[in-house]
Amino acid sequence: MKRHPLDPFKHDLVEIENHLRRSLECEHPLIQEVAQYIITSGGKRIRPVLTVACSRLYGGDRDKAYALSVVPEYLHAASLLHDDVVDEGELRRGKPPAYRVWGNRVTILSGDYLYARAIEIATTFGSPEIDSVIARTVQLMAEGEIIQLVQSKDPSLDRKTYYAVVERKTGALIAASCAIGALVAGAREEEADALWSFGASLGKAFQIVDDCLDYIAEEEEFGKGIGTDLKEKKITLPLIHCFEAGGERASKIMDILNKERVEDEDVGLVTTLISESGALKSAYEEARAHIDSALEALRTAPSSPTRDHLEAISRYILERRR
Amino acid sequence: MKRHPLDPFKHDLVEIENHLRRSLECEHPLIQEVAQYIITSGGKRIRPVLTVACSRLYGGDRDKAYALSVVPEYLHAASLLHDDVVDEGELRRGKPPAYRVWGNRVTILSGDYLYARAIEIATTFGSPEIDSVIARTVQLMAEGEIIQLVQSKDPSLDRKTYYAVVERKTGALIAASCAIGALVAGAREEEADALWSFGASLGKAFQIVDDCLDYIAEEEEFGKGIGTDLKEKKITLPLIHCFEAGGERASKIMDILNKERVEDEDVGLVTTLISESGALKSAYEEARAHIDSALEALRTAPSSPTRDHLEAISRYILERRR
Repeated sequence: MKRHPLDPFKHDLVEIENHLRRSLECEHPLIQEVAQYIITSGGKRIRPVLTVACSRLYGGDRDKAYALSVVPEYLHAASLLHDDVVDEGELRRGKPPAYRVWGNRVTILSGDYLYARAIEIATTFGSPEIDSVIARTVQLMAEGEIIQLVQSKDPSLDRKTYYAVVERKTGALIAASCAIGALVAGAREEEADALWSFGASLGKAFQIVDDCLDYIAEEEEFGKGIGTDLKEKKITLPLIHCFEAGGERASKIMDILNKERVEDEDVGLVTTLISESGALKSAYEEARAHIDSALEALRTAPSSPTRDHLEAISRYILERRR
Repeated sequence: MKRHPLDPFKHDLVEIENHLRRSLECEHPLIQEVAQYIITSGGKRIRPVLTVACSRLYGGDRDKAYALSVVPEYLHAASLLHDDVVDEGELRRGKPPAYRVWGNRVTILSGDYLYARAIEIATTFGSPEIDSVIARTVQLMAEGEIIQLVQSKDPSLDRKTYYAVVERKTGALIAASCAIGALVAGAREEEADALWSFGASLGKAFQIVDDCLDYIAEEEEFGKGIGTDLKEKKITLPLIHCFEAGGERASKIMDILNKERVEDEDVGLVTTLISESGALKSAYEEARAHIDSALEALRTAPSSPTRDHLEAISRYILERRR
């Protein structure tokens, strides 16, 4: 049986879970409840694993790396809390989103608390470089959210805007997860910068594959869950490739996006059009190019089993099916 | 004519305004628009003035102090944006609050952006101490908001909870404004700690006076604007003093708070009861004690005209009428 690329980090994942739980033992029970709800809603912990692995690349102290690794996971959780309020999402990993359980007020303030707590934990390492990476990242995430809110449903959305959102919303935090791992291990600034580039490319590839999977029906799932972005009229890279190619397919898709509501049968039609146009293939090629850039940046780090494991994680991004 | 205690900072206020405007020249026009709206809605800039003054106490560089002074003002603005969404406020300094103009989504995300931008500006000074003060402050502010949301409308709210909210929501940011001023000037940690205490006491006094003024009708205003807290069933120190004294007055007020809606005539009755009970006088005495503590902490700083001006600002808090 093929190993999952996260298998070599099994022991780390246990430690990460412990730290995630323990760092949440804060004063107010309500904050703890909301935070636990979102934190334990079953993420893959890819961000903390990257922090721990990138620290190990440079011989960093394990416990320090674990303690720091909760920072990107809390920032991620905080952004999910605010995203759900903003996007009025219906389900988050199969559970009702926090705002449906506690209401907007508590959810907004718990998100604020998690952002603040993450930044506060980061500052306990006394490293202006780490503080600066985290501060810049939170700013990029907020920018990305706003650009997305304003423009992502506009069918004239272009590749430049798509990447502006992806780089800020997904890329920056994955890049930061890697860079702070290197920094806490005492790596030099240019080494941390290279790992930022590694994570940034990884993040772009990850998001593109995610956007492609929304148009790929899994047979065993009977096409369940596909077309979510399309129904929300979210313009992602597969659609942008179609629009760039122009022609009849592009106008058909544009007509559907201009309808009041995108129906289930529209999803089927658009999926076929995208598939025929070769847009999915082109988007995957673009993702593969980002993985190549990621691996190139990763190779600046000293060779080690951990570097091999990070390579495996990178390649796996192109293979995953959900 | 009596001088206003901010008069000696007139020149600084001009510089502060310039810096507030310039630091907002960010990428996305919408963020800029919302940020400008809240930043230019007419605050007294007391927080940036404290940063600049506390830096001057320790001979700090003017330009560095001005650049840093925008941080507490942005944090304040960010918290106002989120507060208004959470409290569904109707007017903010006479203007409709941002969420009424741009909606909840844009307002939440602009608040996130302003928090992030403030923290990012703070990190440009490369001081782990400043980073840590700011991170801790943002966390305290979020905690204070949540404690307030959950408990402040509970008539059994006690002095301990009242102070837990005031210290976090108002006190922490005023304390931080002072402490970072000292830190950017190169003051020692215990000197910065003393100015944190100065600001924390100042903040408590400021909030108590604010809460008292809500029960004091200005003749020339024909009682306009009083009873706002009471109508929102917000339990503040004057009410807590009444409840602590017990007796018939306390039960009458409790009956009014247990009504579905607090009417205008109830405000008149409660104002009279509070005034008769001596609760306002006791609350003012409590504020005066905090100002005494503030002045004691301030005296650890070297004697200078700036220290005198800060003393004058502190005393003025007890005199202000709106």
